[in-house]
Amino acid sequence: MTSETNLTPGPEHKFTFGLWTVGWLGRDPFGDATRAAIDPVESVNRLAELGAYGVTFHDDDLIPFGSSDAERDAIIKRFRAALDTTGLVVPMATTNLFTHPVFKDGGFTANDRDVRRYALRKTMRNIDLAVELGAKTYVAWGGREGAESGAAKDVRVALDRFKEAFDLLGDYVTEKGYDIRFAIEPKPNEPRGDILLPTIGHALAFINSLERPELVGLNPEVGHEQMAGLNFPHGIAQALWHGKLFHIDLNGQTGIKYDQDLRFGAGDLRSAFWLVDLLENSDYEGPRHFDFKPPRTEDYDGVWASAAGCMRNYLILKDRAAAFRADPAVQEALRAARLDELAQPTVAEGEGLAGLLADKSAFEDFDVEAAAERGMAFEALDQLAMDHLLGV
Amino acid sequence: MTSETNLTPGPEHKFTFGLWTVGWLGRDPFGDATRAAIDPVESVNRLAELGAYGVTFHDDDLIPFGSSDAERDAIIKRFRAALDTTGLVVPMATTNLFTHPVFKDGGFTANDRDVRRYALRKTMRNIDLAVELGAKTYVAWGGREGAESGAAKDVRVALDRFKEAFDLLGDYVTEKGYDIRFAIEPKPNEPRGDILLPTIGHALAFINSLERPELVGLNPEVGHEQMAGLNFPHGIAQALWHGKLFHIDLNGQTGIKYDQDLRFGAGDLRSAFWLVDLLENSDYEGPRHFDFKPPRTEDYDGVWASAAGCMRNYLILKDRAAAFRADPAVQEALRAARLDELAQPTVAEGEGLAGLLADKSAFEDFDVEAAAERGMAFEALDQLAMDHLLGV
Amino acid sequence: MTSETNLTPGPEHKFTFGLWTVGWLGRDPFGDATRAAIDPVESVNRLAELGAYGVTFHDDDLIPFGSSDAERDAIIKRFRAALDTTGLVVPMATTNLFTHPVFKDGGFTANDRDVRRYALRKTMRNIDLAVELGAKTYVAWGGREGAESGAAKDVRVALDRFKEAFDLLGDYVTEKGYDIRFAIEPKPNEPRGDILLPTIGHALAFINSLERPELVGLNPEVGHEQMAGLNFPHGIAQALWHGKLFHIDLNGQTGIKYDQDLRFGAGDLRSAFWLVDLLENSDYEGPRHFDFKPPRTEDYDGVWASAAGCMRNYLILKDRAAAFRADPAVQEALRAARLDELAQPTVAEGEGLAGLLADKSAFEDFDVEAAAERGMAFEALDQLAMDHLLGV
Amino acid sequence: MTSETNLTPGPEHKFTFGLWTVGWLGRDPFGDATRAAIDPVESVNRLAELGAYGVTFHDDDLIPFGSSDAERDAIIKRFRAALDTTGLVVPMATTNLFTHPVFKDGGFTANDRDVRRYALRKTMRNIDLAVELGAKTYVAWGGREGAESGAAKDVRVALDRFKEAFDLLGDYVTEKGYDIRFAIEPKPNEPRGDILLPTIGHALAFINSLERPELVGLNPEVGHEQMAGLNFPHGIAQALWHGKLFHIDLNGQTGIKYDQDLRFGAGDLRSAFWLVDLLENSDYEGPRHFDFKPPRTEDYDGVWASAAGCMRNYLILKDRAAAFRADPAVQEALRAARLDELAQPTVAEGEGLAGLLADKSAFEDFDVEAAAERGMAFEALDQLAMDHLLGV
Repeated sequence: MTSETNLTPGPEHKFTFGLWTVGWLGRDPFGDATRAAIDPVESVNRLAELGAYGVTFHDDDLIPFGSSDAERDAIIKRFRAALDTTGLVVPMATTNLFTHPVFKDGGFTANDRDVRRYALRKTMRNIDLAVELGAKTYVAWGGREGAESGAAKDVRVALDRFKEAFDLLGDYVTEKGYDIRFAIEPKPNEPRGDILLPTIGHALAFINSLERPELVGLNPEVGHEQMAGLNFPHGIAQALWHGKLFHIDLNGQTGIKYDQDLRFGAGDLRSAFWLVDLLENSDYEGPRHFDFKPPRTEDYDGVWASAAGCMRNYLILKDRAAAFRADPAVQEALRAARLDELAQPTVAEGEGLAGLLADKSAFEDFDVEAAAERGMAFEALDQLAMDHLLGV
Repeated sequence: MTSETNLTPGPEHKFTFGLWTVGWLGRDPFGDATRAAIDPVESVNRLAELGAYGVTFHDDDLIPFGSSDAERDAIIKRFRAALDTTGLVVPMATTNLFTHPVFKDGGFTANDRDVRRYALRKTMRNIDLAVELGAKTYVAWGGREGAESGAAKDVRVALDRFKEAFDLLGDYVTEKGYDIRFAIEPKPNEPRGDILLPTIGHALAFINSLERPELVGLNPEVGHEQMAGLNFPHGIAQALWHGKLFHIDLNGQTGIKYDQDLRFGAGDLRSAFWLVDLLENSDYEGPRHFDFKPPRTEDYDGVWASAAGCMRNYLILKDRAAAFRADPAVQEALRAARLDELAQPTVAEGEGLAGLLADKSAFEDFDVEAAAERGMAFEALDQLAMDHLLGV
Repeated sequence: MTSETNLTPGPEHKFTFGLWTVGWLGRDPFGDATRAAIDPVESVNRLAELGAYGVTFHDDDLIPFGSSDAERDAIIKRFRAALDTTGLVVPMATTNLFTHPVFKDGGFTANDRDVRRYALRKTMRNIDLAVELGAKTYVAWGGREGAESGAAKDVRVALDRFKEAFDLLGDYVTEKGYDIRFAIEPKPNEPRGDILLPTIGHALAFINSLERPELVGLNPEVGHEQMAGLNFPHGIAQALWHGKLFHIDLNGQTGIKYDQDLRFGAGDLRSAFWLVDLLENSDYEGPRHFDFKPPRTEDYDGVWASAAGCMRNYLILKDRAAAFRADPAVQEALRAARLDELAQPTVAEGEGLAGLLADKSAFEDFDVEAAAERGMAFEALDQLAMDHLLGV
Repeated sequence: MTSETNLTPGPEHKFTFGLWTVGWLGRDPFGDATRAAIDPVESVNRLAELGAYGVTFHDDDLIPFGSSDAERDAIIKRFRAALDTTGLVVPMATTNLFTHPVFKDGGFTANDRDVRRYALRKTMRNIDLAVELGAKTYVAWGGREGAESGAAKDVRVALDRFKEAFDLLGDYVTEKGYDIRFAIEPKPNEPRGDILLPTIGHALAFINSLERPELVGLNPEVGHEQMAGLNFPHGIAQALWHGKLFHIDLNGQTGIKYDQDLRFGAGDLRSAFWLVDLLENSDYEGPRHFDFKPPRTEDYDGVWASAAGCMRNYLILKDRAAAFRADPAVQEALRAARLDELAQPTVAEGEGLAGLLADKSAFEDFDVEAAAERGMAFEALDQLAMDHLLGV
């Protein structure tokens, strides 16, 4: 039923990839690299051929740590040329505050004050480049902001430092007049035993305490929430509800374990379906960004197959979700499950608290037993969703 | 080393118990009750003898669902007498919006509008009683606010209803002039497949969207956060940082699985140590509330042994945490781990962003490699903590 | 692509249901029953209409605990009549050793010796009925054989008792001349904190220590293995490899949490696909048994929708798995991934250890770097599987 | 109460360390090495000073991959000298079949036949060295024997290859007349999405299918079982019950997440207590082997502090477990919990099945309700354990 035409990715789908994804060499905690390094320009070219809309990067992905200014400029010039040639854009960039051993205890919340200062300066420097390349979102993954043992980090004090860092970054882009916003990427653990701001919720709460909360939102990642066993579409729905979905990282994860970064669609497929259904029925208009790692079993043919699979799976699910929502039987099933009633305010327009308190039918005369007998009709609805997902 | 004197619970420790804890009959998903019902008055008496400070309850714990007004009044009168006799207080109460089948799809976010109205009225009614009995905190655990399947709940719409409910409750206590605040209790799942506001973070974020955020805080539970694999002391630290720790539920859980509600100290003992260390070094002055279930293997002797164990374990850990913090070797180890540096602002008083940007030692001249070589000395610190925890 | 004809369940598919599944009343740890009890005979009739092949039961599902012999006989007679009318069979039965409080510390491994003796006798009595009704498999789920605390159970001694129980049951059916085999159902936890024989592997190992290992195999359940984060198809493959897949419980689970018992297909859909692919390409010819719980949000319309969904999802996946295996592109991709090489013995026929040791190309002259460069082509293969699963 | 004398490690405690533990450089999935490489001879010297009994190694830990025979001999000679000087022994060795990219799809079960042959030869070569150095146990961790996607590995066929490998290794040591046994180390996942033989149970079952099962046992690791949420002492108890605990890897893990390899005692402390209690009350006389990773936040001072902490924590727990078992109050509590009854056979000597069937008190006349009312007294027992663990 799904036409292959609908499955051809193009710039209109806003699919983006981190340079570090297709460029991952396959080094893992127990093994050395299985792939030779790839030139970022080649990644740009290949991704463009596959139908991507843009690329993103950590500073060190593009410009090796420790490069001279001249080397840096040459790299950037060549990279821009590749973007210009292919038409790919750079809607987002981010900082690597985790690979170098200086960040072993974190960046913005490292116990060492000089490391925190260095982390801020490193970030600001790459924000300049991000803005120069046209990025509108700057992601902050605080992967090393955390601890393995209880006394090693005073969390309340560390949150003070975390707030200080984002307030300073807000000052920086404001003073510079940059048109860019920050997106915090939560993760519960790995590489630290426990990471600060471990979930979408914790990061949303934190943002409210900043000096410029309007500049900061979220970049949630599928696998990170699933590493805490949380329902990713639920988390995205709450982020949207708060107006804070600034960016999104799509990938796959098979449950609570190490961070897998499988291609999108692998892992929890039903959750991926509901995620696409949600995104496509929301006001989120940003990139569909794939933050995945082609398994280290693969050579570069496998890398590109994996990247193509991310986009293909998104488009299949988009097609299926559209059909689901358009199906009259589904609409009837949604009514049977009283989703329309959920959309009605609990207290009527103008009724107010007084009205609710005065309404005997709401409590004194409410027939609890009769109400309890009504079935919710959720299983029939969910089977319709399964049929649409599977294209039956 | 720990004197038994320090392990004798008294009202000054503010230990409280839910009537539903020692009163749990042992009914689980696969088994019938193993204990006969206990009279709440007997629970009050026994808990007083054990050294508790107060008791808490769901409306239906004290007053069976469906009781007449006369029955209700008689029960309350008798309960108050027991409180007066024993000196126990009722610092918190809550509503049961989960046992009766009418709440099978939730209370405040049920798809059925009449159920939502009924849930609000049931809650308001019990708030009256809570206030009458002197409670200052009203807990809201939305255990059935959630879903098992993707289309059954539109989460954004459900959050609208959730907000509406708390706004109405805020209106209610304000109009009544009640001196009581709400405490939301997050939980990731069980009895629903996924529950809304699944963690401390999600609930903190939600509160910021309410009309009267100052009236609403949190009642985090040890096991609930651990069911998501999250570090409980970290979550409590963030709640404290936001000024939102209004109440706390202490118990034990052995990892990511069904909700165990073991006695406090059982489960993750090291986490319990850091929790007590944190609470005792914070401005939290509320009850230490045990929300546990004596295992269904136990008769009432076991129930009281389990309740006494909760308090004893708290007091042991409190004693050990105090010794840990007082130990000069620990203070030295904290300095070696640069906790003092974490407490220093990253940018000095008056330095500002401009100062940071102008400081070449922060970036251009920073010796990254030298900084990377510094060990953090966390293992020695953590072993000192282990020695203190174990009383070596 | 999938024809509805292929999705019509019939006896040839060997779909069976426990009476306790469609008969579950919706009582959970936090809530009362949401459905009225259903007559087992009605369940038989409805399941027959839906296309089921058979039903299964715990003794207490059919015959209420404590029934007199006369009541028991009347119930059995009526039940047999329903079977005869509908043509449904009873290929499996089992014992309830978990609901009654007498089993709070287990059945075969309860610390109380009299409880163990009672559990054995209760089991033997129901084996008689199982055989009388034609069952060839007798399932043993030891859900209460476990502990919440470390000293409460000496596991080595408990395993002695567990072995004693199965040896006695083996004696019993042998002496009686019954044509029935036992199938142990592993589960890691819930309702006990930790359950003995927690996974497929532990149960397989245990069986080897029995007096009559040939009489005992496994009844693995999807959700139980997934509660330990294990790959269910991998576990089934190992059980098949040992010749020990005697029966199977199909349902759905969304990750590591409480036991959900969702309908088959819900939860991890990709895992369900690989499971059906495995079963349909194995020598397993037993029932496809659904051990699920229709969510307590549902009335009986929802119960039957849920039961029908279990069978429909199995048939959809069976259809897709068959198409996957038949696709020449898949066969080519399997060769590209060297599955054919995996099937070749590592040491050739007649080569032996000596040959391997003498082969310089195997070690001394092996070009490790060249071999390391070969991609495994797994991502392309997995995307083909995704396409087939989704019917693209 | 615990004397420091009891906490001084010595050879009599049989504490051993992998060279790869203190020698771990801190490279993780998101970060580069934080420590410079250490000379294995220095590790031997330092561990000897700390009170260790021995060291263990993977071939590549001691002899860099790709060394010439001459380099190899020189390294071994120097290493033996260090052993001789310090008195440390090498009771175990193992093979690295995971770091080099040639093993990206596994060693003994790689799809590529030549990789499997190479893996076997590499293993056999290191067995020679292990025997030469006096090792009696050869560990096999099949960390890369697994898959990330469903069709990439035919598990039944892979188990054939796995069996073939162990049968060949059994032939090898038998033909050589080596006095060495194999110990399989199970792990559920990481670095592969799912690993074959994921738990203690699966490996125990597998061993029974080998040609020489007597030559093969287990090397369970604390964290690996806990990554599946399993109770480690329960698993060790079952391994002991089968006579298959050949070696053990001690470390710490804080729940279901990535493989943490914390020092022993960190993570689940109560589980560590029960583990030491079990080991010290069993016939296991092998090494107490620490397989941990000093966190990458540490410099070498931290590495040695961490190594010393492993031994110290074991000795503290050993001391506490001994006091627990010796306490008359505990012995009384164990009787109250009827552990003595668990130790009695369910059917008396000479009674047999016939006796059980004839015993009306076992079923017909058994007072189920009265039996159900007996409390198990587990909470009082567990609180005594807590008191002993905490040294109160």
